[in-house]
Amino acid sequence: MIKNTLPLIVFFLFSSLLVCSCTTAEAPPNYKTEKTDTKKIEIPTPETVLRSLHDDALVGSPAYSQLRYLCKDIGARLSGSENAQKAVEYMQRVLDSMNLDSVYLQPVMVPHWERGEKEFCQIIGSQDKNIDQKVLDITALGGSVGTNGKVKAEVISVNTLSDLEKISEKEAKKYKDKIIFITQPMDAKLISTFSAYGGCSSVRVVGANYAAKVGAKGFLMRSLTLQNDNHPHTGVMIYEEGTKQIPAAALSTNSANYLEKALKKADKENASVEIEWQLNCETLPDVLSYNVVGELRGREKPEEIITVGGHLDSWDLGEGAHDDGTGCIQSVEVVRLIKNLETRPKRTIRCVLFMNEENGARGAKKYAEIAKENNENHLAALESDSGGFTPRGFRVQDSTRLKIIQKWTPLFKPYNLHKVEYGFGGVDIRPLGETGTLLIGLEPDSQRYFDHHHAKTDVFEAVHEREFLLGAAAMASLTYLMAEYGVE
Amino acid sequence: MIKNTLPLIVFFLFSSLLVCSCTTAEAPPNYKTEKTDTKKIEIPTPETVLRSLHDDALVGSPAYSQLRYLCKDIGARLSGSENAQKAVEYMQRVLDSMNLDSVYLQPVMVPHWERGEKEFCQIIGSQDKNIDQKVLDITALGGSVGTNGKVKAEVISVNTLSDLEKISEKEAKKYKDKIIFITQPMDAKLISTFSAYGGCSSVRVVGANYAAKVGAKGFLMRSLTLQNDNHPHTGVMIYEEGTKQIPAAALSTNSANYLEKALKKADKENASVEIEWQLNCETLPDVLSYNVVGELRGREKPEEIITVGGHLDSWDLGEGAHDDGTGCIQSVEVVRLIKNLETRPKRTIRCVLFMNEENGARGAKKYAEIAKENNENHLAALESDSGGFTPRGFRVQDSTRLKIIQKWTPLFKPYNLHKVEYGFGGVDIRPLGETGTLLIGLEPDSQRYFDHHHAKTDVFEAVHEREFLLGAAAMASLTYLMAEYGVE
Repeated sequence: MIKNTLPLIVFFLFSSLLVCSCTTAEAPPNYKTEKTDTKKIEIPTPETVLRSLHDDALVGSPAYSQLRYLCKDIGARLSGSENAQKAVEYMQRVLDSMNLDSVYLQPVMVPHWERGEKEFCQIIGSQDKNIDQKVLDITALGGSVGTNGKVKAEVISVNTLSDLEKISEKEAKKYKDKIIFITQPMDAKLISTFSAYGGCSSVRVVGANYAAKVGAKGFLMRSLTLQNDNHPHTGVMIYEEGTKQIPAAALSTNSANYLEKALKKADKENASVEIEWQLNCETLPDVLSYNVVGELRGREKPEEIITVGGHLDSWDLGEGAHDDGTGCIQSVEVVRLIKNLETRPKRTIRCVLFMNEENGARGAKKYAEIAKENNENHLAALESDSGGFTPRGFRVQDSTRLKIIQKWTPLFKPYNLHKVEYGFGGVDIRPLGETGTLLIGLEPDSQRYFDHHHAKTDVFEAVHEREFLLGAAAMASLTYLMAEYGVE
Repeated sequence: MIKNTLPLIVFFLFSSLLVCSCTTAEAPPNYKTEKTDTKKIEIPTPETVLRSLHDDALVGSPAYSQLRYLCKDIGARLSGSENAQKAVEYMQRVLDSMNLDSVYLQPVMVPHWERGEKEFCQIIGSQDKNIDQKVLDITALGGSVGTNGKVKAEVISVNTLSDLEKISEKEAKKYKDKIIFITQPMDAKLISTFSAYGGCSSVRVVGANYAAKVGAKGFLMRSLTLQNDNHPHTGVMIYEEGTKQIPAAALSTNSANYLEKALKKADKENASVEIEWQLNCETLPDVLSYNVVGELRGREKPEEIITVGGHLDSWDLGEGAHDDGTGCIQSVEVVRLIKNLETRPKRTIRCVLFMNEENGARGAKKYAEIAKENNENHLAALESDSGGFTPRGFRVQDSTRLKIIQKWTPLFKPYNLHKVEYGFGGVDIRPLGETGTLLIGLEPDSQRYFDHHHAKTDVFEAVHEREFLLGAAAMASLTYLMAEYGVE
């Protein structure tokens, strides 16, 4: 696009003014410059505050450099790892340097799973000479047991988890001692990639259990991404008590496509496909780790708390950039931005960097447990764990209080935060919900998230500075409004 | 984010159902299954049609491959170049293969500017031994004259175009025979990067004229991007009649920062900064080129036309991916998607790939001219020329008819098209507006556009397939609604 004449430039200036006037033409919420009794503080209008939060975020923020450090200097931060401990110490240093009212660690025991040496998987076309030997891109699923050395087995495919579930005892023989490969892809037709993921994530979490129940000795799945590439995506799997623990892994989408074709070809020829694979992972004893907490106390109602957070742990394949370095640093940025305002808000804002979201949510449970023990009053909690992409709005996990948040939509509109709808808050804040805390999730654009999620492509370079900072400013805006005006 | 337990998965499925029910809970526009008198055709509800357009776009579309060909196999397509001709021929082949009602070329004479050999620019710290010799990243502005070999001159900086405009005759001496460097950056605080661009683009378009008026013999500017990098961004500049034509170029933001610092340092020490530069560009005689047109005739009102388009030419530094390969292929995709529906809409849809948007808009003028000559009835025109990023909505350039388009917002909501506001339609469709055609621009997310705009980073790899296809589906949705239901 060009502006190749002056009139056009003038038009553009004019049209941007029009955009501004549109938003003020909307009936604004009924706020006035307020004088508090106790201190006679002049509170600026929320419009002014939101503008200033955005200005501050978009020019000169340290957040992107902090994210760079977390991703490039520390890197992947799987629970129980040395890097997770380094991340705890780094974030504590960052919060300590911000001159908050209090910064502390919450000890919590976390699982410790290790991948070990890189996995190996190769098709060995033993029964059909036409099927090439071919190395497949594979990653163990988090929590899986290893294969105990290099082993061979025949692969047999099943279309969906639901098909696997339906296999009768009579049919089960066919699957005995095989590796079951569920070919189910994410549904590209769904506009939200999270909905597409939600339709498949149970394949990863529980698939190996269903496979074990029909006698399989291994489990394979297609990586949960809409890209066709060579990067396998890991993620948690959970063994049910009493079910045999069989090795479980994901293939890159390209490798999954290749294996699927090989199986179809073999099937036509009444042949079979054998693979040789090796997973070296194991679960070690739990490790002491921490949630990192920084607090900005409220000026009038310090006992009423708004939690804002993300999770500090990540999978081990990338750098935990979008999942969830961005959410952590955005939460720190929320506190920095609000602290920079002339007047601190009425209620307390607590930035929490949760440990162990990926494979246990132990930090989440610990935080809620301590809050309950201390009889804390948690008004609301806002989590960012859907990537550092351009923010589109918020998901509010309570249809009644959703209306309170929706009253603020005219304030959000200049920042293109149009979507304030019912939806899931976040894994780390979920346990707080049990005592009535309002749970809210930042909703960024979802199109690129699963290109990176749990894969080695989740790196700092995949985060766009402005998109990420706009997310932080959106979170700061909502956090400020809740901290100043409440959510009742 | 993980779903690490089944209840969570169930919740997600449930919440995605909730999203669906939310949108149907909205009062839908008053459409019914309609039976036309003439042919007794059953018209599906617009909800059904929009869903089917999106499904078709998101699975199995040829559009991304077409874009790859346009960008990687052809590449940059500056007006008058061999590549522009190749692009015309390729797009004609693509449209020809689609079995439309008519495909044709509209001849139009276009400007022919050539960059020549790569530019050169180096600081030569002649008067201040502390200033290093340093090569700067530079690009000639499109339309500029060359320097006529390697020449040296002192550089003097001015903060803004407006400061340059205000220089009095008395002060002008200081600038005589210097190169004037306007340091003005885009304003990062503006949420829309197009607004930030709009505030600076006149520096590029007319800056050299103001510089010439105070006696300068060259003009430099900071590239119009919010990134700090080494890629200079070109774009059109226009010489006013009667003003001396001096060479004009843009520095990469990193080089601009370097030069600015060098100038400040020199200023403190009462020294000056000299550069040596060479631009090898020239304007050649006009060349015959073409708009490429493909038409799907309306079933009941073929004389009422909806134009949907983008521009086929691009600057010469990248591959013209976001500017505007995406807009062209999206427009072709609109016709493919709508043609795939069971029933073609009432009115005619015409896909137009305009030539020469970047430096003359000759194709735009020619198309409107022919439309007028033929007394065509152009109801509306929709342009995509703001990048192939996730669509956010539409800019409608008429405040009255905006309300008609806004009635469709419940239909757009499931596709996250929330923003239907007054705004600029597009450079290529603008001349149609003179005869009352409703002008509309696709509004994608703007955050990454100026990272690529007019620079060598505007390549195929910078376009995300789903974001791009969602843009095409959004355009197809609005085009269908206008073609079926009109805009009166």
